[in-house]
Amino acid sequence: MHEPADDALAARLPAGVLREVAPAYLEEPRGRYLGRAGLVAAPRTTDEVAAVVRACAEARVGIVPRGGGTGLVSGQVMPDGPAPLILSLERMTALRGAWPEENVLVAEAGMTLQAVRDAAEAAGRLFPLSLASQGTAAIGGCLATNAGGVTALRYGSARALCLGIEAVLPDGSVVHDLKRLRKDNTGYDIRDLLIGAEGTLGIITAASLKLVVPPPNVGVAMLQVPDPAAALTLLALAEGRMAGGVTAFELIGGQGPAFLAEVLPEIRQPLPGADWSVLIEVGLPEGLAPDAALEGLLVDAMERGLVLDGVIAQSGQQAADFWSLREHIPEANRRIGAIASHDISLPLSEIAGFIRDAGAALAGHGVRINCFGHLGDGNLHYNLFPAAGRQRGDYDALRPALSRLVHRMVVDRGGSFSAEHGVGRLKVAELAEWGDPARLAAMRAIKRALDPLGIMNPGAVLSAGA
Amino acid sequence: MHEPADDALAARLPAGVLREVAPAYLEEPRGRYLGRAGLVAAPRTTDEVAAVVRACAEARVGIVPRGGGTGLVSGQVMPDGPAPLILSLERMTALRGAWPEENVLVAEAGMTLQAVRDAAEAAGRLFPLSLASQGTAAIGGCLATNAGGVTALRYGSARALCLGIEAVLPDGSVVHDLKRLRKDNTGYDIRDLLIGAEGTLGIITAASLKLVVPPPNVGVAMLQVPDPAAALTLLALAEGRMAGGVTAFELIGGQGPAFLAEVLPEIRQPLPGADWSVLIEVGLPEGLAPDAALEGLLVDAMERGLVLDGVIAQSGQQAADFWSLREHIPEANRRIGAIASHDISLPLSEIAGFIRDAGAALAGHGVRINCFGHLGDGNLHYNLFPAAGRQRGDYDALRPALSRLVHRMVVDRGGSFSAEHGVGRLKVAELAEWGDPARLAAMRAIKRALDPLGIMNPGAVLSAGA
Repeated sequence: MHEPADDALAARLPAGVLREVAPAYLEEPRGRYLGRAGLVAAPRTTDEVAAVVRACAEARVGIVPRGGGTGLVSGQVMPDGPAPLILSLERMTALRGAWPEENVLVAEAGMTLQAVRDAAEAAGRLFPLSLASQGTAAIGGCLATNAGGVTALRYGSARALCLGIEAVLPDGSVVHDLKRLRKDNTGYDIRDLLIGAEGTLGIITAASLKLVVPPPNVGVAMLQVPDPAAALTLLALAEGRMAGGVTAFELIGGQGPAFLAEVLPEIRQPLPGADWSVLIEVGLPEGLAPDAALEGLLVDAMERGLVLDGVIAQSGQQAADFWSLREHIPEANRRIGAIASHDISLPLSEIAGFIRDAGAALAGHGVRINCFGHLGDGNLHYNLFPAAGRQRGDYDALRPALSRLVHRMVVDRGGSFSAEHGVGRLKVAELAEWGDPARLAAMRAIKRALDPLGIMNPGAVLSAGA
Repeated sequence: MHEPADDALAARLPAGVLREVAPAYLEEPRGRYLGRAGLVAAPRTTDEVAAVVRACAEARVGIVPRGGGTGLVSGQVMPDGPAPLILSLERMTALRGAWPEENVLVAEAGMTLQAVRDAAEAAGRLFPLSLASQGTAAIGGCLATNAGGVTALRYGSARALCLGIEAVLPDGSVVHDLKRLRKDNTGYDIRDLLIGAEGTLGIITAASLKLVVPPPNVGVAMLQVPDPAAALTLLALAEGRMAGGVTAFELIGGQGPAFLAEVLPEIRQPLPGADWSVLIEVGLPEGLAPDAALEGLLVDAMERGLVLDGVIAQSGQQAADFWSLREHIPEANRRIGAIASHDISLPLSEIAGFIRDAGAALAGHGVRINCFGHLGDGNLHYNLFPAAGRQRGDYDALRPALSRLVHRMVVDRGGSFSAEHGVGRLKVAELAEWGDPARLAAMRAIKRALDPLGIMNPGAVLSAGA
């Protein structure tokens, strides 16, 4: 399986780090790309990661870092070019420490997000980052891609939840910056540069993470709104009333529940037939009953015509049911089979216009649009599906033009063609085309400065050799 | 006044940008350093900033960017080396736009922080960054130094409040990244790299800033605590009860009020004689009276022995009085005359031990310690003053050793020798000595990559030529 060069490299790696090149290392969740690999290494320590990186640098072999493998933009698989070494963080899963009195824990990069959340909970705290794939996604990958999710509205994306990192740079040196500090203005923000760089500037091996005390009063409601513009006005109203207490604010277009009714009919639907609805979660102080706070919001919003109907969860089970509806939409999407998925963000005041205009522009193409997502962040998952009775494959020729149309309309409104998933290999061309030229030039200069051999995740974010 | 080289440079600048080299451009607030300047340019537009930068690059003349000039680490004055061009942002003060429905405004870099706060208020919103110097400090300088202040506990430092920037890079190219997006994962975080780089990687000319809806219910209290450890336990209790509603949590050591009584006796003292007290501000949702919430906290905390005495503000005037006490401590310090000031941060669980051990280590040196600051961020201003009856000058020989002692104890406990003021020119040696070597090497590589001529704020953060 290895090329001869890989055997020479293998001999220079720390003993015991090699793993079989199993298919699981070459896959990504949507099954669109199959990666290649000369070797798979799973180091146990930061020093071993550094040794692997140094060996690859000497051998001029590319490294593709891999956490849980749940990325959606092919950052973790390299289908083309010389076969790389896959550096899996799967054995670096230690909780290095927890300081609940500081609201901090330090996790190794291979810990799953769920394991980090569990460790926080065991310490009486909450690590608020929350994603559908959290049982598999590694915290290192969450940081490398600056993952977002449903609570970013209140707590920020992964970047906002990280106080410090330990990372191996492309020359094998180790940045030791696992500080547990809220404020530290001593030089350039190398931490935030590595966060979101998708493994192209170095490998995050551990992180110091910010925890919060769980809010004492949590409430959840599903509210039917007349349209997306009303949902945005409702959001502003809710944020004003709740003083930062809105934890999640998810827009759900009617197509999602319709797909659920079709392929997952066991999922309860509290507002059947709603064209647009919102799932809101609030986390409130001691002394303020969440039912009363949500009831006050509901009355206020109905008087203003922002809400048509609403259900406030009366139990933990009901709250879980509401969330279950939201969280099963991606699964329903998978079963229906999307033509194209778009992870976009827009300035909040552009959202209603985008939904209107994009819908109109796509109307003639015989697609169904499932539009849902993290409205509070301006982040929509705008996914296209075959018309009823037609198949994905019928749209193969049309797909690139449809995605381009969507992305073009987003960019024209000051939005982003990758809100929370990253660039990976999937969107390298879009970034090159639509990215600000001076910013791109700075990115390339930094890539050359930190990774002059171009070994770190070659071809991700920036085209190899750019 | 100009050197010959400056006349040649002056001729190449856009018409009308030059200003007289007035003393105000060469000063910093503590009066310790006097800067030098060959020319002062005050461009009116981003294009003019770019033209000035290109002309300086061609002439190999250093540029010292200047906002309000309130920095405390000499980043805005260059006392040594070839006389630079000072690039003042004083004429770039436009509010480019406000989108209250998005909680965003776009400000040019020369707007004062107060002007930004006023613009937000005029739009029915709050820009939460708040500093003693906000009437003079420019928002561009706040971003360049990642300024912190009293509300960072809840809303973060300047970096956390910035969605996008426009900036001129050292080659005169302009990064146009004034996006109004909460999520945008399209490549390296150039924004956060320029934020906190103190003008050494480029000049921020405008920024897209995050606003919030002001909390409907605000409450303020002063609480006397037995010691700093109790203050930290009180903070955790308050954060738990308030669900993120604690806006500020300021520790006040007894020396500050004692200085106030001496030099500013008109300032009201609600808890006279307290060795340690805390100023807490909360911003709470609709439906929760702040008095009741603070009363609940006070009772709970007194039962646990965390609070000895407390006063809850019963009016806006009383709340303003409490804040006035806190905000006049720096003024009292100036009148007393510090031997040395330290802007430090520590992991929260190290604070009590640091205060104890540093106090013991300094006990034999005949100094008075005024320890106060943003406890919620682990950020203390740990300032040393002459013993009663002695003068600053008596300590001239001792000063470096005292500061080193303090910084050494901070670093040994995993803290930072610059929490919120930055490195400037004052702490370049400390950063070189105590910074992580791999992180420093990455910083130097990035500096060389983006500013190969070394013209941007030479000698700040990293020593020139490093």
